[in-house]
Amino acid sequence: MASKMASCIFCKIVKGEIPSFKLFESDKTFAFLDIQPLSRGHALVIPKVHGEKLTDIPDDHLAELLPVAKKLALATGAQEFNILQNNGKGAHQEVGHVHVHMIPKPNPEEGLIIGWPQQKTDMDKLKALFEEIKAKV
Amino acid sequence: MASKMASCIFCKIVKGEIPSFKLFESDKTFAFLDIQPLSRGHALVIPKVHGEKLTDIPDDHLAELLPVAKKLALATGAQEFNILQNNGKGAHQEVGHVHVHMIPKPNPEEGLIIGWPQQKTDMDKLKALFEEIKAKV
Ligand SMILES: [Zn+2]
Ligand SMILES: [Zn+2]
Repeated sequence: MASKMASCIFCKIVKGEIPSFKLFESDKTFAFLDIQPLSRGHALVIPKVHGEKLTDIPDDHLAELLPVAKKLALATGAQEFNILQNNGKGAHQEVGHVHVHMIPKPNPEEGLIIGWPQQKTDMDKLKALFEEIKAKV
Repeated sequence: MASKMASCIFCKIVKGEIPSFKLFESDKTFAFLDIQPLSRGHALVIPKVHGEKLTDIPDDHLAELLPVAKKLALATGAQEFNILQNNGKGAHQEVGHVHVHMIPKPNPEEGLIIGWPQQKTDMDKLKALFEEIKAKV
């Protein structure tokens, strides 16, 4: 973990070793503009603690991320927007430090494009899956 | 607001007036399986308080949403997954009560499909935008 942190671009941004357009900072959380935006106001909210996936971050550090994303949404004045947090390369994660995107959606062309390959509802399979997951929550 | 809540399908699920595959409940938060899943284990985490967008929900109710999403990700055993919360019809929101999707991404075909129309980086425009947003945070 230590070597991963040493080379982590977001850890460097938190430490100020790489400059950023910092919009918010608290003891647990850091937020800045994405410099490769999908739309005007696209920003990132990250926990200061290093962790690759949501499941690697302590709950008290996760707790601040959505309230800060809300603050940014209000500050940009975005009427419509997406909150997105990707876990794993196959799920479109590009930097291995948890980050929450706040992406304004001003029109169909700009901002996040969503594909929704909805599966057929199978209530029997869902019920079996439910019992299985419920036992592990 | 009162009439919107009366007809809100997620408020009815919280009250138990509509059945659901409930995975978690606390005083502020409710989670259940999406019955029109994009992948096995696709679940929703919602604040019990009614609000259409992230910006309508009090911070202390937002705080629990990601810790619960993390719990569900762990329970499903998903290695890769997306967390998504849509605000507004143009941003793909289909039910007018804030909900956080936890969508496992087992392979390229199933789960969330993401389009990423990245804009050209213009540092001068970003700097001007930064000053504008920063003043409002
Ligand atoms: Zn890091
Ligand atoms: Zn509702």
